[in-house]
Amino acid sequence: MATLTDTTSAVATTGSDTAMSSLPHAPPCNGTPSAPVANGSPSRMKTIKYRHVFATHSQPRISSLTHGAEVPSFVGFRNLMILVLVVSNLRLMIENFQKYGVVICIHCHDYRRRDVINGLSLYLSVPVHLFVAYIIELLAAREANNALARLKRAGEDHDTPEMQAAAGRNFKRTWWTVAMAHGINASLQLLIASKVVYFDIHHPGIGTMCEIHAVILWLKVCSYAFTNRDLRHALLHPNQSEPLPKIYAECPYPRNVNFKNLCYFWWAPTLVYQPVYPRTSNIRWGFIFKRLCEIFVLSIAIWIASAQYAAPLLQNSMDKMLQLDTVAILERIMKLSTISLFCWLCGFFALFQSGLNALAEIMTFADRDFYGDWWNVSSIRTYWTTWNRPVTNFMRRHVYSPLIGRGWSPAAAQVAVFVLSGFLHELCVGIPTHNIIGVAFAGMMFQIPLIIFTDNLQKIKGIRGKVTGNIIFWVSFCLVGQPLAALLYFFAWQAKYGSVSKKFSESPALHLFSQR
Amino acid sequence: MATLTDTTSAVATTGSDTAMSSLPHAPPCNGTPSAPVANGSPSRMKTIKYRHVFATHSQPRISSLTHGAEVPSFVGFRNLMILVLVVSNLRLMIENFQKYGVVICIHCHDYRRRDVINGLSLYLSVPVHLFVAYIIELLAAREANNALARLKRAGEDHDTPEMQAAAGRNFKRTWWTVAMAHGINASLQLLIASKVVYFDIHHPGIGTMCEIHAVILWLKVCSYAFTNRDLRHALLHPNQSEPLPKIYAECPYPRNVNFKNLCYFWWAPTLVYQPVYPRTSNIRWGFIFKRLCEIFVLSIAIWIASAQYAAPLLQNSMDKMLQLDTVAILERIMKLSTISLFCWLCGFFALFQSGLNALAEIMTFADRDFYGDWWNVSSIRTYWTTWNRPVTNFMRRHVYSPLIGRGWSPAAAQVAVFVLSGFLHELCVGIPTHNIIGVAFAGMMFQIPLIIFTDNLQKIKGIRGKVTGNIIFWVSFCLVGQPLAALLYFFAWQAKYGSVSKKFSESPALHLFSQR
Repeated sequence: MATLTDTTSAVATTGSDTAMSSLPHAPPCNGTPSAPVANGSPSRMKTIKYRHVFATHSQPRISSLTHGAEVPSFVGFRNLMILVLVVSNLRLMIENFQKYGVVICIHCHDYRRRDVINGLSLYLSVPVHLFVAYIIELLAAREANNALARLKRAGEDHDTPEMQAAAGRNFKRTWWTVAMAHGINASLQLLIASKVVYFDIHHPGIGTMCEIHAVILWLKVCSYAFTNRDLRHALLHPNQSEPLPKIYAECPYPRNVNFKNLCYFWWAPTLVYQPVYPRTSNIRWGFIFKRLCEIFVLSIAIWIASAQYAAPLLQNSMDKMLQLDTVAILERIMKLSTISLFCWLCGFFALFQSGLNALAEIMTFADRDFYGDWWNVSSIRTYWTTWNRPVTNFMRRHVYSPLIGRGWSPAAAQVAVFVLSGFLHELCVGIPTHNIIGVAFAGMMFQIPLIIFTDNLQKIKGIRGKVTGNIIFWVSFCLVGQPLAALLYFFAWQAKYGSVSKKFSESPALHLFSQR
Repeated sequence: MATLTDTTSAVATTGSDTAMSSLPHAPPCNGTPSAPVANGSPSRMKTIKYRHVFATHSQPRISSLTHGAEVPSFVGFRNLMILVLVVSNLRLMIENFQKYGVVICIHCHDYRRRDVINGLSLYLSVPVHLFVAYIIELLAAREANNALARLKRAGEDHDTPEMQAAAGRNFKRTWWTVAMAHGINASLQLLIASKVVYFDIHHPGIGTMCEIHAVILWLKVCSYAFTNRDLRHALLHPNQSEPLPKIYAECPYPRNVNFKNLCYFWWAPTLVYQPVYPRTSNIRWGFIFKRLCEIFVLSIAIWIASAQYAAPLLQNSMDKMLQLDTVAILERIMKLSTISLFCWLCGFFALFQSGLNALAEIMTFADRDFYGDWWNVSSIRTYWTTWNRPVTNFMRRHVYSPLIGRGWSPAAAQVAVFVLSGFLHELCVGIPTHNIIGVAFAGMMFQIPLIIFTDNLQKIKGIRGKVTGNIIFWVSFCLVGQPLAALLYFFAWQAKYGSVSKKFSESPALHLFSQR
């Protein structure tokens, strides 16, 4: 009512054109019909501006969400998604706090003194195998030098077929000896470490660290042995072989087989041995400090997430697992997936970005290609070749490429890589949790059909196929694979050691874990 | 072990170059050092390919997440966000189902027969006021025609000052009469509708629909009256006035004051009266069918979301509201925010995209500019001018622009628009819930400082300011404003009618609602 009477006589007032033009945010298209106004009026003094007759609807227009209209930007919805994610997880944190209070506790962490002593001893003793490999290589290099000297004494005729055959037989024998020595050394390394972790380290965290450390050094030992064998062969057969990479020229075989070179490889952020690596000229200590701060903050984040959020969740899931209540298990996996995804992303950044970069900086190691943009992958295959470049490089150089060289088909060589990878995954998860239930291995094997599926998907559909492939990757890996595996290993652990084991005998889930 | 011995003799096999080149997904940069291989070998027959010495690390590279590196695409994380949102809400749905089962029920919906009868009567009687406005305009148009005829009879001398003054006095009297008649008609419309809804319709849903319908028709009545008044003035003072919009030429005043024209305005998807609108040439029935299907699906989605998810949540919040437990209320608001956001987005699409487009198609109304891309706004001001174009157009043409014409400053005119808008919001929410607690009005008033804040924010920071502004918009509107308002009105409702009212007298929250 007030508005109505207020404006009733508004028309009697002469409108000022300046006020009208200062109208903010008037849509540009609405200005068109009022354009003749100023031009058309014979005398500006007398003009009355009819504001209530303004033609708001002067032209046909289409709604921006209608099919066929110019597609508007949706960047605001991206911001909304970030916001909703933050808010809904904040809410879950409040809910968690209301239910459990603060369960994080530094002093009350339950680990045995014996675990720490065993773990530390194992951690310190594992590098011994690298030094054994070094001694083997030292002896092999001396043998090679002697053979080279013998051949030189025999004059320039060492390329005659008879000599070659004799030398070949001689070297083959030496090679077999060296290969056996390396094989025994490397196998012992894995066997001893796994035995200690499985039988003598109860705590799964300490066990996992020791086992992963042992696997990393095992890979380094293998790479050291394989690379030096090829370098030795190239030295002894200079005419038969292709030239070595130029970067190795600085340090030719057998000069590279020295203690300093070995120690560099021991600490370098790579699993692939090279006599020479690209190096940086100086160490930026500020860079290292920043990376260490990142590791510190991310580690705390992961610790809080697992202690405060994942642990009660895993405990809660036990009943449902025992009853094989599918819907409830699904619900638990979904809740766990966000936490495991968070931990996984933090852990990835802390290890591959902060950790390896800090280590590389200290070691003046210049090739920082530790990962690709795996988060954008549309094929599971690309994921496995981009997320962990150190392991990919090892597998490509020491497993895939040699198998191809022996005439294997690419597909078969890839399967071999996944079998080895699955074996190592099972070692790193199954041994420390004292449950070799094969889930990690099966998870890696399951990647093979997934790769075939996403590869084909990409071929068929174009851009949409890329998005679908990316979603399949995220679902399979971060939202299903990891939390499900975590639940299964946790359940197996609880079944063996935890408080649930008393109820366990009456559970229908018993049959699934009947091996124990 | 198997791998080690398997590949020991691999070097003896002559590598085939074709097999190597078929290695899929080899990083392009790794290819460089192996380039001289093929060229450098003197005889290809004899060449041995040393696969284990391949220089994986041949050049300095920088990690893609390191500051200074080429920023990679993060489109995968967008997909991940969508996925996490879907999964975490699916989880909440499972949790909800486990807690409450299915609470949706068509037959057991609690509404009174009297509400339906009163609502229907009100719904059908409200348009009567539009016809009353039409009759007033018919009489005014006849009066104007008579006046015009008198002036014509008086010859060409009607522009002399004395004649003009006399005519002016005459018209001013007529105008006042017309304005009073319209004012009484429009005010009665709002008063009667609000009285019936407040006192005679208990059900808040039926009440809201009736009240909103009444407000829409009130706005149409106002626009019809204002526009025709200006058109009439332009007819009587052809020399004084600026030319009318060209589009009106087809149907000049008073020819536009006819029943068919009024009925078109009654049903047209606009609140702004024009004698002529841009029109489409034909009705696409397939288009209408699709829009109706959208409305159907979205309505069901909103119904399920509110009945199954929002209702139990609101019920749960009562205890916390009564105890004024801030953290718990915050948690409830956060949970409610996702559901209210979902309902809001569905409702927006159903009403502004599907509903108004379907209506426009039936009415062959060509200007479908019912909303802008409000989801991208970085200033709250832009939000209010883009999300609801019909109301914005009304406010701009009939409130803001005339006030500017009377010499008001743009800021003051904007405040006036928000005051009127807040009043109408309070009518649409407070009246049907029988609680005029002023939260909706206060919410609209709170937009004014927010507008000042986000306008200044945008000026300061550039691109970052835009993202910040957009986040502030989402937080203030969809995540705080709406669920908080819903909670407060629901609480007020429960306090007045619900089962909680017995506990209510002992609650500390009593003092906050002590008006009753």
